[in-house]
Amino acid sequence: MAQWMRFDDNGVERFGLLQGNEIAVYQGNMFEKPIATGMRRSLASIRILVPCAPSKIIALWNNFHQLATKLDVAEPDEPLYLFKAISCIAHPDAVVTRPSSYTERVVYEGELGIVIGKRCSNASEEEATAAIFGYTCVNDLTAGDIIARDKTFPQWARAKSFDGFGPFGPVIATDLDLTKLHVKTELNGVERQNYPLSDMIFPPAQLVSALSKDMTLMPGDLICCGTSLGVGAIKDPSNTVSVTIDGIGTLSNTFVQ
Amino acid sequence: MAQWMRFDDNGVERFGLLQGNEIAVYQGNMFEKPIATGMRRSLASIRILVPCAPSKIIALWNNFHQLATKLDVAEPDEPLYLFKAISCIAHPDAVVTRPSSYTERVVYEGELGIVIGKRCSNASEEEATAAIFGYTCVNDLTAGDIIARDKTFPQWARAKSFDGFGPFGPVIATDLDLTKLHVKTELNGVERQNYPLSDMIFPPAQLVSALSKDMTLMPGDLICCGTSLGVGAIKDPSNTVSVTIDGIGTLSNTFVQ
Repeated sequence: MAQWMRFDDNGVERFGLLQGNEIAVYQGNMFEKPIATGMRRSLASIRILVPCAPSKIIALWNNFHQLATKLDVAEPDEPLYLFKAISCIAHPDAVVTRPSSYTERVVYEGELGIVIGKRCSNASEEEATAAIFGYTCVNDLTAGDIIARDKTFPQWARAKSFDGFGPFGPVIATDLDLTKLHVKTELNGVERQNYPLSDMIFPPAQLVSALSKDMTLMPGDLICCGTSLGVGAIKDPSNTVSVTIDGIGTLSNTFVQ
Repeated sequence: MAQWMRFDDNGVERFGLLQGNEIAVYQGNMFEKPIATGMRRSLASIRILVPCAPSKIIALWNNFHQLATKLDVAEPDEPLYLFKAISCIAHPDAVVTRPSSYTERVVYEGELGIVIGKRCSNASEEEATAAIFGYTCVNDLTAGDIIARDKTFPQWARAKSFDGFGPFGPVIATDLDLTKLHVKTELNGVERQNYPLSDMIFPPAQLVSALSKDMTLMPGDLICCGTSLGVGAIKDPSNTVSVTIDGIGTLSNTFVQ
């Protein structure tokens, strides 16, 4: 397994492989034959950035059996999704501020993120597997009280696209065996989510194959796999929300009201 | 009024000002102090491209009084929208092919497109007006029978994001007075839409101001203002769909089943 990350190295954006407390710096294209530079940086000397620059962010709704059962909604026949705006991306450790135009409930949603590594269209599940570069942690922040505010049109895209509502990272882990992994979300140090990825309705290969029949997926595109049990509101004046998946690590952000 | 366009000049991507049958070529940033090169190209010698590269495409639903009345839906209190994927962009004159995974109704939707020229967040209507670079024509192609296929989740983003479903152009017209303009859509030479832009529920300044309170708008971002009366299905094996707005010109594409 490799852990790729991007980082700010005193004003220069670089990427590389996380190795313990150091980063082996690479250059070129992370997704295609990256070149080792021989340079190394200590984690303590850099600032971690989101590990890639998606051209689109696809966010799944209703993709876990346990959550569908709890919400008493039918399991979907095909992936159901919306797009989050690129402008909502937030770096690991970034402070996310409540939008000034919205005073109601903001919820955290810890999720697995799939990062695409190869241009991918009309892919079989085998081709989809080959097009997946790796996995990351996502906090799919949501302005929960906007979604159903208008009776005629559910406002999914808007509710999930405020600036800062799309943190992901800290790394992209390749060759991760998801079968025994859980997504764990802590709010101010208290565990709120701990759900198994084996419970996914559309697991990654099936999901990427289906999405690639709707649109061309590009290297760096991010697919947020949906959340499961334990979603909740962020209430304190300042909150630490962390999403952990073993092998990827912990994505931690501060949300300030 | 100026008409900016991008084009392929024998494999080199350039942009410039349309002047009759010629283009005055500029360089640098179209949105900020573009520099005249003195070069000119004839329209006949180049291939027109989409006039900008949006980081996001916002598409409005229910933004015309006449259509709301016809559909008998309440007029919204605030703009209702989804995102179209960037991967759906199609150039003027491009051939758009029906997605192989979808056999049902595809509809044309002739629309006004707003192109943002300045980074814009929490803007007043006055600031929003200053952030609008100009206007273009959009054909917001839609896989109409996907939207309501799942009873629990309207699939707006998916229905409007197949590859090729986002043609816009041919130019961005600045300083356009919209008050007397109409959007005219022809399907295979027959006029199907001819609706006044004065009928918009949220006109551009109000719309951009509201959207900028939800997310940061970036130069080149495209806002599709929604359609009005006359939307219909594209049925022939090969179809010419053209969207015309005086001052912008005609966006024409071929849709092949």
